[in-house]
Amino acid sequence: MKVGLVQLAPVLGNPQATLAAIDRLLAGVALPELLVLPELCNSGYNFTSMQQARDLAEPIGDSAFLDHLQRICSRGGCRIVCGFNELADNQLYNTAVLLGPDGVIGKYRKLHLFLNEKDYFQPGDLGLPVFDLGCCRVGLLICFDWFFPEVWRILALKGADIICHPANLVLPGLAQRGVEVHAMTNRVFVILANRTGREGDLAFTGLSRIVDPRGDVLASAAAQQEQVLIADIDVGKARAKHITPRNHVLDDRRPAEYRLLAELHEQKKAE
Amino acid sequence: MKVGLVQLAPVLGNPQATLAAIDRLLAGVALPELLVLPELCNSGYNFTSMQQARDLAEPIGDSAFLDHLQRICSRGGCRIVCGFNELADNQLYNTAVLLGPDGVIGKYRKLHLFLNEKDYFQPGDLGLPVFDLGCCRVGLLICFDWFFPEVWRILALKGADIICHPANLVLPGLAQRGVEVHAMTNRVFVILANRTGREGDLAFTGLSRIVDPRGDVLASAAAQQEQVLIADIDVGKARAKHITPRNHVLDDRRPAEYRLLAELHEQKKAE
Repeated sequence: MKVGLVQLAPVLGNPQATLAAIDRLLAGVALPELLVLPELCNSGYNFTSMQQARDLAEPIGDSAFLDHLQRICSRGGCRIVCGFNELADNQLYNTAVLLGPDGVIGKYRKLHLFLNEKDYFQPGDLGLPVFDLGCCRVGLLICFDWFFPEVWRILALKGADIICHPANLVLPGLAQRGVEVHAMTNRVFVILANRTGREGDLAFTGLSRIVDPRGDVLASAAAQQEQVLIADIDVGKARAKHITPRNHVLDDRRPAEYRLLAELHEQKKAE
Repeated sequence: MKVGLVQLAPVLGNPQATLAAIDRLLAGVALPELLVLPELCNSGYNFTSMQQARDLAEPIGDSAFLDHLQRICSRGGCRIVCGFNELADNQLYNTAVLLGPDGVIGKYRKLHLFLNEKDYFQPGDLGLPVFDLGCCRVGLLICFDWFFPEVWRILALKGADIICHPANLVLPGLAQRGVEVHAMTNRVFVILANRTGREGDLAFTGLSRIVDPRGDVLASAAAQQEQVLIADIDVGKARAKHITPRNHVLDDRRPAEYRLLAELHEQKKAE
């Protein structure tokens, strides 16, 4: 199947301009079956106040931004994963929405908030869902989530073939190295759709990439160019979890030893 | 503090030759406080039979090989981590021994056995201990263990500053990339002491390295050269777990979400 991403600079406070950029970048492109956009595409990232963050949030069920993306899905027969500033129950969430031609398929709310995001967003409260699209099973992570190896592992154990990773990365090159290793050790595909450009004091790092289950980069973007990446992948490679005839990346785990993880964390906080 | 490693080719079935090589490589070197040797140093790796593996195993309490290393510790006032083919209760274990001037401080038995190791060794049964040496806290992993992000995390949660990683790596370059990311995301030092050379159909990949808690390589070895690496490290960097003023690599975890890890694995096996 074909998968892809759009690397661009969402325009803070101007979703119409962002949609125009997406349309321009996709013009003439044969749409892949699964397309990933960066984090917080409908709002931009570097808010100067809670009021601004709130003004730029939308409910998932009432979003002109998502309606536009759904029309792209209908036209191309594809699914889109898009980072989304979500308003729900009078709270904001840093969310990734999975859309298809018929509307919203599912969503994920970022579990690990970075720096000032903690002022604006509630921490994710929907766990780590995996969505079966028939052609593949998709897990979602957002930006700084990458830093926590637990989430990659959980998505792999839940059967994700492809992990879609909308991002607004600012630490140069770290996540790009990280996702390759997490792809390799969990034997999954990763579509890291990072943004470019600057907002205030933040410079975003681009270098979006599509990584295969061996950790090899199938397609990669430049640091600062707006561009579309497409790759042809064999989903079966994410289901071949043997790395030698006698070593399986999930079954070789020693879960009796790993149960310590949660307890140790709680001890640490109590100290 | 100073830490180091010896990259060399242990000689299958000839521990005296291996010790002679270690002595030769360390001649004239100011010994660091902590020195790491490759996996299965006292025996070599690529056994042709269970009998050979057994003939080359030693009990930890009765090993001329470890006695020799202990004399090095006494001379240099240092600690050594050494991969060791351990005979215990009539079973073999792929073990890492931590030695000091006064003898054995502790040991770890490899949790994740690679390929034919499953014919020779029992899986590790001592969990993931961390040893407080006063100057630093040390965790131990062996070779293919690197592939399992859980073990890095557990050692970090248990307070390890430095993870010593004796190895006999054969997959080119994968672990070297991996340990850098695990160092970065757990904010620990890693001393990856890999071996060089060939045994039968196996070629070992060298490229040993000392990695700091930012994932940066402080010292790295060539692919095929026998050599000693030394680096001066500030252990405090492994205790500075904040990566921004508002993000802590351990406290930002969401353990309530991660408890799924063990359960999901069990479900998977039952399917």
